[in-house]
Amino acid sequence: MSQISRGLENVYIKTTSLTYIDGENGILRYGGYDIDDLVDHTTFEEVVYLMLYGDLPNKIQLQRIRVLLNEGYEIPQQVIDMIYGLPRDSDAVGMMETAFSALSSIYGSPWNKVTNRETAIKVIARASTVVTNVLRAKEGKKPRIPEPSDSFARSFLEASFNRTPSTEEVKAMDASLILYADHEVPASTTAALVTSSTLSDMYSCVVAALAALKGPLHGGAAEEAFKQFLEIGSPENTDQWFQKKIVEGKARLMGFGHRVYKTYDPRAKLFKRFAKQLSERNQEAKKYFEIAQKVEELGIQMFSQKHIFPNTDFYSGVVFYALGFPVYMFTSLFALSRTLGWTAHVIEYVEEQHRLIRPRALYVGPIRREVIPIELRG
Amino acid sequence: MSQISRGLENVYIKTTSLTYIDGENGILRYGGYDIDDLVDHTTFEEVVYLMLYGDLPNKIQLQRIRVLLNEGYEIPQQVIDMIYGLPRDSDAVGMMETAFSALSSIYGSPWNKVTNRETAIKVIARASTVVTNVLRAKEGKKPRIPEPSDSFARSFLEASFNRTPSTEEVKAMDASLILYADHEVPASTTAALVTSSTLSDMYSCVVAALAALKGPLHGGAAEEAFKQFLEIGSPENTDQWFQKKIVEGKARLMGFGHRVYKTYDPRAKLFKRFAKQLSERNQEAKKYFEIAQKVEELGIQMFSQKHIFPNTDFYSGVVFYALGFPVYMFTSLFALSRTLGWTAHVIEYVEEQHRLIRPRALYVGPIRREVIPIELRG
Ligand SMILES: CC(C)(COP(=O)(O)OP(=O)(O)OC[C@H]1O[C@@H](n2cnc3c(N)ncnc32)[C@H](O)[C@@H]1OP(=O)(O)O)[C@@H](O)C(=O)NCCC(=O)NCCS
Ligand SMILES: CC(C)(COP(=O)(O)OP(=O)(O)OC[C@H]1O[C@@H](n2cnc3c(N)ncnc32)[C@H](O)[C@@H]1OP(=O)(O)O)[C@@H](O)C(=O)NCCC(=O)NCCS
Repeated sequence: MSQISRGLENVYIKTTSLTYIDGENGILRYGGYDIDDLVDHTTFEEVVYLMLYGDLPNKIQLQRIRVLLNEGYEIPQQVIDMIYGLPRDSDAVGMMETAFSALSSIYGSPWNKVTNRETAIKVIARASTVVTNVLRAKEGKKPRIPEPSDSFARSFLEASFNRTPSTEEVKAMDASLILYADHEVPASTTAALVTSSTLSDMYSCVVAALAALKGPLHGGAAEEAFKQFLEIGSPENTDQWFQKKIVEGKARLMGFGHRVYKTYDPRAKLFKRFAKQLSERNQEAKKYFEIAQKVEELGIQMFSQKHIFPNTDFYSGVVFYALGFPVYMFTSLFALSRTLGWTAHVIEYVEEQHRLIRPRALYVGPIRREVIPIELRG
Repeated sequence: MSQISRGLENVYIKTTSLTYIDGENGILRYGGYDIDDLVDHTTFEEVVYLMLYGDLPNKIQLQRIRVLLNEGYEIPQQVIDMIYGLPRDSDAVGMMETAFSALSSIYGSPWNKVTNRETAIKVIARASTVVTNVLRAKEGKKPRIPEPSDSFARSFLEASFNRTPSTEEVKAMDASLILYADHEVPASTTAALVTSSTLSDMYSCVVAALAALKGPLHGGAAEEAFKQFLEIGSPENTDQWFQKKIVEGKARLMGFGHRVYKTYDPRAKLFKRFAKQLSERNQEAKKYFEIAQKVEELGIQMFSQKHIFPNTDFYSGVVFYALGFPVYMFTSLFALSRTLGWTAHVIEYVEEQHRLIRPRALYVGPIRREVIPIELRG
């Protein structure tokens, strides 16, 4: 079976100018810019421009992105109704998948070099409305459309929670949008690429990506990591929990380890910083941040010689929790942000490298047989 | 860029015991059985069993499949409502995508060797209900759930058209279900596999497959082929149309040519036989069958030395049309049938060969740069 490329490991499906990962040295760059530099000196809207147009925007270009995002929040009432029509305990990403399928039925249109990037920006704006209303539907609150503002992160938080977020909260939300925006071609992005390869529309690419993201091996790690902290419950329980669960029970430490990073994930450092900041004014979040820090310390002691370190999902949950999001929304927040990466990758693929994706399967079944009448079958 | 596996051509993503294709000799086998043999001597239900359990069923096993299919037709009212809530001119496959996303939110469950095959059978039954109601919604008819019967094809036709189909119609529908049931790993099946690789649920795998199938390079060929016959309008116009459009206009002849088959597609022969039979009692269908035959003759004259022959989509449209389906439903009929192949392939993958599908992308973008303040950007 040596012909089989299991998991497509080390198969290069495309080239990209979007994201560069150096797993040995813990480096992540979008379009050549270090992730720290982007988080410290730009906003999500600037990263949207960078990913779609290849460069950071000047003031006029940035203003144009803001206008397009602000104009994009409206979605048809029937899509809102669909979200609210699903059972309240439905999986949040599954609800997004439903909404995006409906959006694809309504808005799906052919690829077009002149409009692809504006379509992507609309898709991102609509993702904000969809995620907001998935949260609101699950919480039993009335629907709400994000309102135009000078910040995508602010509009999203305001609509989600029906209150004015602090500057600090907006900054943390914005940073997490940047941090999760792209990570080359994991399974969800691959599903989007396969879909784009048949020239299916951009919304359908997002649908396929959501379908793949939903799986527990992909999008769910931030939720799983945070559930550990909930289970620990209080900082002084950490040692005992770790000893019993990880050392003796040999459970995987969620939020640790990565296929590509063999050192500290550069995103984890940044999420840690925001988790610390936000939790200073929030007692509950502070508790979980302290637990997380203790778990990190023990995890590094135990695993660092195996090159296993905290990954992006280790602290992101503390940030999301401190912002007020229920744990079941964490993967949808990842999806909201990754919508940028998904759309940017499919545009790159369709415009510059398009080819129908059609691998092969190696037949290993029974050789030729003949149908025998059903009466005579054993 | 020689490292890039463009379109994943000749990359083997898995092994399979489901489908064997010999493109040189025009051979297609499911589980070792020639497609002709299956169409002539079995029913779709038997092929469902073959694909999921590896062998043709005996009478008791077949009865069990029938019961499971018959029990599976019910879907929640809110999913029917969603189909009817979409604009009537929505893309039919997009409507299926929406319904399956909602089904995933409601029924999605973890993989389990003990129940996977029964889940797949339910998915197939629900696909029948979904396709029926997509048709009925688009035609402005009331919703209807297929009723239990001794034939999946019969229940589907009856619910779709609200009338008792003839034995001949049931046989033709059944044959086309068998003929489109699987074809190894085209883009839609690949999207399903990527989704299954994150251990996302089976309904989500179907959603991703539908998202990919929808693209004009994949599922749409039967519609495109038949639209040619509609455009020709009458057999005596064929020569002129062919001369102008294909010979002089150099347009691709839709329903001709195949990446794998370099001779007559074995499915095309069978679809032709059913098209001929059905059109004997249906004046309009007869006209299109005659047109198709003339186009085929001219196409073979022109293209056979290039190893381009009719493919499965060339005559399938005539069969679907003769059964009473509008052209916009042809791809959904393909999807109904292929739901078997999609679910069978993902079960094979998850149970026997599971690995997260995570290819790589080769970074070719700008090397390291530093963020300059927005005021200073050009
Ligand atoms: C992300 C992940 C799947 C990458 O793993 P991978 O490259 O496939 O590597 P493997 O699963 O083969 O693990 C290699 C070794 O490290 C160990 N390991 C990896 N991650 C571990 C973790 N989080 N906790 C404990 N041990 C871990 C494995 O047990 C294995 O040990 P062994 O060689 O002694 O058997 C893995 O680190 C993991 O499951 N992490 C937890 C889930 C998570 O946080 N996912 C989000 C990733 S962004
Ligand atoms: C299916 C299909 C995409 C496979 O093509 P492929 O393996 O990628 O082969 P190519 O597109 O490279 O075609 C090879 C040559 O055959 C020609 N060709 C292939 N299919 C043709 C068709 N249907 N009509 C006219 N010429 C055709 C191409 O123009 C090309 O000619 P050239 O070498 O002189 O440039 C192609 O045959 C096609 O587009 N068919 C029509 C659509 C259709 O019926 N699709 C359903 C397939 S099940």
